[in-house]
Amino acid sequence: MVRILRIAVVSVALASSASVITASATPPLESLAVTASSLGQKALDDPAAYGFVASLATEIGQRLAGTEAHKRAVAWAEAKLKGTGFDNVHSEPFTLPAWIRGAESAEIVGPVPQHLAITALGGSVATGAGGIEAEIALFRTYAELLAAPPGSLNGKIAVVTQRMVRAQDGSGYGAANPIRRAGPSEAAKRGAVAYLLRSLGTDSHRLPHTGALNYDDGAPRIPAAALAIPDAEQLERLAALGPVRVRLVLTPVVADNAPSWNVVGEVKGAERPDEIILIGGHLDSWDLGTGATDDGAGVAIAFGAARLIAGLPQRPSRTIRVVLFGAEEMDFSGAAYAKAHEGEAGKIVMAGEADFGARTVYSVQLPPGAAGSDFGHMLGRVIAPLGANVDRRPPLFGGEDVRGLQQAGVPVVSLRQDGLDYFDTHHTADDTLDKIDPKELNQAVAVWSATTYLTAASDVDFRSLAASAK
Amino acid sequence: MVRILRIAVVSVALASSASVITASATPPLESLAVTASSLGQKALDDPAAYGFVASLATEIGQRLAGTEAHKRAVAWAEAKLKGTGFDNVHSEPFTLPAWIRGAESAEIVGPVPQHLAITALGGSVATGAGGIEAEIALFRTYAELLAAPPGSLNGKIAVVTQRMVRAQDGSGYGAANPIRRAGPSEAAKRGAVAYLLRSLGTDSHRLPHTGALNYDDGAPRIPAAALAIPDAEQLERLAALGPVRVRLVLTPVVADNAPSWNVVGEVKGAERPDEIILIGGHLDSWDLGTGATDDGAGVAIAFGAARLIAGLPQRPSRTIRVVLFGAEEMDFSGAAYAKAHEGEAGKIVMAGEADFGARTVYSVQLPPGAAGSDFGHMLGRVIAPLGANVDRRPPLFGGEDVRGLQQAGVPVVSLRQDGLDYFDTHHTADDTLDKIDPKELNQAVAVWSATTYLTAASDVDFRSLAASAK
Repeated sequence: MVRILRIAVVSVALASSASVITASATPPLESLAVTASSLGQKALDDPAAYGFVASLATEIGQRLAGTEAHKRAVAWAEAKLKGTGFDNVHSEPFTLPAWIRGAESAEIVGPVPQHLAITALGGSVATGAGGIEAEIALFRTYAELLAAPPGSLNGKIAVVTQRMVRAQDGSGYGAANPIRRAGPSEAAKRGAVAYLLRSLGTDSHRLPHTGALNYDDGAPRIPAAALAIPDAEQLERLAALGPVRVRLVLTPVVADNAPSWNVVGEVKGAERPDEIILIGGHLDSWDLGTGATDDGAGVAIAFGAARLIAGLPQRPSRTIRVVLFGAEEMDFSGAAYAKAHEGEAGKIVMAGEADFGARTVYSVQLPPGAAGSDFGHMLGRVIAPLGANVDRRPPLFGGEDVRGLQQAGVPVVSLRQDGLDYFDTHHTADDTLDKIDPKELNQAVAVWSATTYLTAASDVDFRSLAASAK
Repeated sequence: MVRILRIAVVSVALASSASVITASATPPLESLAVTASSLGQKALDDPAAYGFVASLATEIGQRLAGTEAHKRAVAWAEAKLKGTGFDNVHSEPFTLPAWIRGAESAEIVGPVPQHLAITALGGSVATGAGGIEAEIALFRTYAELLAAPPGSLNGKIAVVTQRMVRAQDGSGYGAANPIRRAGPSEAAKRGAVAYLLRSLGTDSHRLPHTGALNYDDGAPRIPAAALAIPDAEQLERLAALGPVRVRLVLTPVVADNAPSWNVVGEVKGAERPDEIILIGGHLDSWDLGTGATDDGAGVAIAFGAARLIAGLPQRPSRTIRVVLFGAEEMDFSGAAYAKAHEGEAGKIVMAGEADFGARTVYSVQLPPGAAGSDFGHMLGRVIAPLGANVDRRPPLFGGEDVRGLQQAGVPVVSLRQDGLDYFDTHHTADDTLDKIDPKELNQAVAVWSATTYLTAASDVDFRSLAASAK
C-alpha cells in the first residue's frame, strides 16, 4: 500500500509561492503547481478512469489487434472520447498481419497421459491439425539451451523452464524476454521441431502467459507455446525420472493486411496548440483475458488524466494528445504512428505511455537533465503527497508505442507503477477487471494528470534540458 | 503460520508421569503419550508423506474414479504400501457409473461475443454437440432462484452468482453446497434449459471449480456447469446492462459399472488385532488438476502417520487400517466400504478421513464425551507442542468416506486443517503440487500419527465414553 496524502487543495508551501506573480505570458511554475496539485487531488475521487476500463473490459472484452473485437473497441473508444469533450477525435488507420489463435492443446503422451496447460505464443506458426509428437529436451536455464550444439535437438521439442524474477519495476520480465522472443529460433537452429517455455510470469496458476515471439530469418519457423508454471514444474519433475513424450497442437492463422487504428483525441492548447504532449495506452489486448490491466488500465489512465485537464476553467497552453494505440502487443502501432507523424516529431514536447497495469505510480522518470531542473523539483513537490517521487534517473523506455517517436528524438517520460504482481496475470486469461483496485488506479491517474498538466501548461523544454545536461 | 514447538522428545510433565508404571496389560496413558509425542516430533522431519503425494501428483496426475488413470493410481498405491512394510495390502473392488468429461465451452453470444471459462459439474448430462443457446436469467442469490415461480425460467439458462464465504473451517462451502448440488434440478423445475453457477470457490482466477451435482428425480435433467469467478462477475455486469445470450456446450458421457477399488494396508495390532483404528483419505481426484491437495495430501497424511507407527520398535495393541478410498468425489467409495464391512463395524474403534487439504491441523474433534476424558486431556497435552488442541465439540462429520461407517455406529474423529485458502484451488485445474508446503503437511502428519497411535495403543472406548456422556 502506498500512503496517499489528501491535502486541502494545495500544500502551504505551494500556496505561498503561488502569490508571486510575474509578468511572463506563461504563469510561473508555482502557480501551475497549484493547479496540478488540485488536479491530482481531484483524480483520487474521480470515477471516470475506472468507469472507462470497466466498460471496456465488460462490454468489449478481449480485443486482439486486427479482429472484429478490436474494431468494436475502436468505435467504442471514439464514442467515449467524443462524449467526454475531447477535440479532434479520429482514428488513424494502418494494417498488420493479424495473428489469430486457433485450437491449442498439449498432452504428455508418456510415461503416462497427462494434460498440459499451454497457450500459443503470438506469431507462432501452426503444428497442423494432427499436431507434433516428440520427446522433450528440457533445459532449466536459457543459457543451457544456447550452449546446446547444432543438431543436438534434432526431432525434439525443446523446453526451457527458467524462472522469471518477481520485481517491483518489472525488470524480471526484461531479463527473461529473450526466452520467449528469441527462444523458438534458437531451438530451431539446434534442430528442435517445436518449443515450449515456462510462462514468463510470477504466479502459480494453470493459466499460461502468451506474448509475441520474433522468428529469426536464419532458422526454420517452429511452433511455440508457453506452459503454465505448474505444468513447467511437472515436466521438470517428470524429465528427472526419464524420457517424456509430448504432443502439441496449435492451429493459429494469419490474416494479412488486417486493419487497425490508433484512436486520437485532444485537449487543444490555449496558446501554443501546435506543441504537443502525447500520452497514451494501447487499446488492443491479448485474446485470453479481457485486457483489464493490459492495457485497459493504461488507456483509462491517459483518458482520465486528460479528461480532468479538459475540465479545467482554463486550458493549458500546449495541446494534450491522447493516443489509444491499436496493435501494441504485435509491435505495430508505435511504428505506424511514428511513421505517420514523422514530420511532426519536433513539435512533440513529451511522449509517454501507461502500459504497466493498474497499480500506483511510485516514481516519475523525466527526460535527461529534467529531474534536477526547476520543473523537476516542482513536479516532485506536487506528486509527493500522492506517494510518488521524481526519480533522478531518466527512462530507458517510455513504452513500446512511443519507441518510434523516441527514436525520432521525442523526449519520453516513464511513470513507474508498482509491478510486483503485474506478471501474475499479464498476458493470461486472468487479466480481468477484478484485478483492478479503483483507488490505486486513481492514484496513477492523479500522478499522470499532474505531470501532464505541468508539462502542458509550462514552457519546459526537455530537449534543451537534455542538451545542457550533456 | 502455526507455531510448532520442537521438543526434546517428550515434555517434562509427560516424562515424570511416565515413571508411574501400573500392572495393567495396557501401558498407562502417560507412557503411551511419551511415544505419541515422539512420533509427532519425528513426523515434522519425515519426508515420506510429501514424497508420497509428490510421486502421486507427478507420476499419476489426475485420477478420476472409474478411469484408466485411477486404475494406475491403485496399482501405484498398492506398490507403495507393500514397499513400505504395511500388512495385508489389497484392493477391494466396487463399481460405479463413471462420469467422463467431454468437450466443454461457453460463449456470450450477445450483446457481443465473449469467451466464458466454465467447467461441467460432475454428473451433468450433455448438451449435445451443437450446444444450447439461450438468454440467461441471472440470480445474485440462490434464494432468489428458489423464489422464482414454476415456468418463469422457461427456455432460459439459469445463472446463480451467489458468493461463497471464506472461512478457516470451510463452513462457507457447506453453506453454499446446495447451489451446486441441488441448483440444477431447482432451475429445471422452473423451466430452465441449462444451469450455470458461480464456482464454489474463494479465488479470483479464470479456473472454474467442478464438483458433483445430484439430480432430483422430480425434475428434467439439464446440463450444468460452473463459471470461473471473474466470468460470473462479468455476467453480473453485463446482465445489469441488458439481455445476455449464452451458448453452452458440454459433452460428458457415463460408463456404467466402471471398476474402482478401495486400497487397504494395515499395521497389525500386537495384542488386539481385531480392534481397528481406520484412517484414510481418497485416492481418486477430479480430472482438472493433479489432485495434490484433494486428496493426494490426505492419502499422504494417512500413509505417513501409519508408516511412522509401523516403524516403532513396539507396535500398538490395536490394528491401524489405512484405507485409500476410490470414488469419494462421486460419493461412491464410502458407501461401498460400509456395505462390504457391515459385519465388522462393531470392531472399528474409530474412523477418520483426511480430506481437507495440506495445511496444518489446528484442532482435533473427538467423539462425544471424549474431549473431557483422561484420553482427551492426554491427547491435548501431546498435540499442544504441535500447535493443535482438542476441540470441546465432537465432529458432525468425519469425512465423506466414513459417513457410512458413522451411520453404522462407528465413532468418528475430525482433525481440522486450516482451510482458509483451500477453496482457492479446490476442484480446479490449479490443484497441483506447488500448492503444498511440506512443513505444513508434516505438521498434519504429526497430529494424525499422535492421535492414531494414542487410540491404537490405549484401551480408549469411544462408544462407552459417548454413552456415559449422555
